[in-house]
Amino acid sequence: MTKFLSFDIGGTKLSYAIVDEKGKICSGIHKKSTPKTVEELFFMLCQITNENEGQFDYVSFATAGAVNLENTLVRSSTPNMPEGYRNLDFSRVSKSNIFVENDANAAAWGEYKKGAARGYKNIIVITLGTGIGGGIIINRKLLRGKSGKAGEVGSIKIHTDAVRECTCHNFDCWEAYASGTGMKETIRRLAKIRPSFRKGVYRNARVEDITTIDLIKSAQRGDEFAKEVFETWQHHVALGIISLVNIFDPEIVVLSGGMGEVVDCKKLEKEVNHNIVVDPVKIVPAELKNNAGMVGAALLAYENLELHEDNRI
Amino acid sequence: MTKFLSFDIGGTKLSYAIVDEKGKICSGIHKKSTPKTVEELFFMLCQITNENEGQFDYVSFATAGAVNLENTLVRSSTPNMPEGYRNLDFSRVSKSNIFVENDANAAAWGEYKKGAARGYKNIIVITLGTGIGGGIIINRKLLRGKSGKAGEVGSIKIHTDAVRECTCHNFDCWEAYASGTGMKETIRRLAKIRPSFRKGVYRNARVEDITTIDLIKSAQRGDEFAKEVFETWQHHVALGIISLVNIFDPEIVVLSGGMGEVVDCKKLEKEVNHNIVVDPVKIVPAELKNNAGMVGAALLAYENLELHEDNRI
Repeated sequence: MTKFLSFDIGGTKLSYAIVDEKGKICSGIHKKSTPKTVEELFFMLCQITNENEGQFDYVSFATAGAVNLENTLVRSSTPNMPEGYRNLDFSRVSKSNIFVENDANAAAWGEYKKGAARGYKNIIVITLGTGIGGGIIINRKLLRGKSGKAGEVGSIKIHTDAVRECTCHNFDCWEAYASGTGMKETIRRLAKIRPSFRKGVYRNARVEDITTIDLIKSAQRGDEFAKEVFETWQHHVALGIISLVNIFDPEIVVLSGGMGEVVDCKKLEKEVNHNIVVDPVKIVPAELKNNAGMVGAALLAYENLELHEDNRI
Repeated sequence: MTKFLSFDIGGTKLSYAIVDEKGKICSGIHKKSTPKTVEELFFMLCQITNENEGQFDYVSFATAGAVNLENTLVRSSTPNMPEGYRNLDFSRVSKSNIFVENDANAAAWGEYKKGAARGYKNIIVITLGTGIGGGIIINRKLLRGKSGKAGEVGSIKIHTDAVRECTCHNFDCWEAYASGTGMKETIRRLAKIRPSFRKGVYRNARVEDITTIDLIKSAQRGDEFAKEVFETWQHHVALGIISLVNIFDPEIVVLSGGMGEVVDCKKLEKEVNHNIVVDPVKIVPAELKNNAGMVGAALLAYENLELHEDNRI
């Protein structure tokens, strides 16, 4: 049985575990804060690899940022990662062969092989968190694009008038509305114009102190303002999915990430199916949750490193 | 040399020609108005087929509407086509084998094989006309989706607030802004609020009489109002393309259709490349123009029908 030391490296957290060729996690799942400099991060990865020496055959990485077509390094600048991250030489982390994939792509592959999208052929996996990521599987193959950067679904435009600036400095990206960051902006904007804001649980709150978790709890408890923000946010989530479903005509959309867990999938599915011109689609929550990236990276590494099978479009 | 009687059937016009297996048009190109009833349309197709009997081996159709995965019939309702069009039995038009493909997909294939996208692997072809169609080629293959309906790019959402109703009865589809119909709506909306409307060539015009052709000419002649409408429209065109490029990371975007011809491709390319997070993309006008659908349908039919025969031997 081939085993992988599989990492999931995000802007805030870094997790790793030993994953076997069937996608089974066969160690504890370790979590750390992502170091603030690329030197510390590199050192940490080497240290973890050394500590686990002998327990794995290959090393796989699910990482923030776009990955090159050879699956060896990060090609894009990644605003949430330490400076210089795109130059990190993953091949020097271990003497074993390594395999690198974008985290949203790896998570999509994990959900396709072992999670909520098992058995489907045309799949969109959306990761809703601080930002929005996407992994797209077309007829059982991962969409990579001309240079490995495809699937940047967070940058779909959902407004005509340059209303919201995104962290990428462009305007009206889907991510500026439908991510956690987007929900916070919706709180800020609606608080200014809705009298309901000062009539419920936020009567004495400072807008900038309201977190997304807090907002979601208040909505669940029936606060009018929080309910409106939540519904507006979920409508924003729907808009990008409607576009993607019209473009790809997939069987299933899987929602992962922290913000994905709070979506009312049944209600969202209804709104989406009411607004598309292709055949109806299923919308379901992710099953592997935070492990999807590690599992997917290991499974992709297995197919690429062992079988040399081309599972990319 | 295998020959095809190849049709391109749109909401307003119907064209046909004899196309050979290399994509060469080897007859005159005939154009007719699309009949208003499905009975008249069926009769016309049969008549044309009979008149050309002996000059072709197969019949290929590029048609408005989504086509099933077997390439035999139209699966979707098509608002611009005669009522009952989705039930039209193409196989009864001729004794020869037939092949049906969505017009935007066929046009994309034509541009990929014989036109502006020759030599590229990841291609988006946008048809800008009365509506918007799209054909997407990923690593040399046509994107079809779970049921043949993929590529409905006209239904990308580009506004959050239900501002414009589309002919599909949903709101804020890209098509409601960036098609010819969309430009007319922009004329109507801007005429209400811009004093420049009554200061130039339209000082005595009725808004509803201004055609897109007329508007484009006035913009080219420097009318302030017409220039603003045109630039707004071109920005609307850019928005959908930005989303698609971020999703697919293609090498090239080809603009076809009547409204595609009037786009300032250089300016559009600049706006798009300034607003994407993937690598830069080329944006070019179509080369085959109105013939792309006929040529693409014939070439797709050749690959599908001929290979089928080989399989049976």
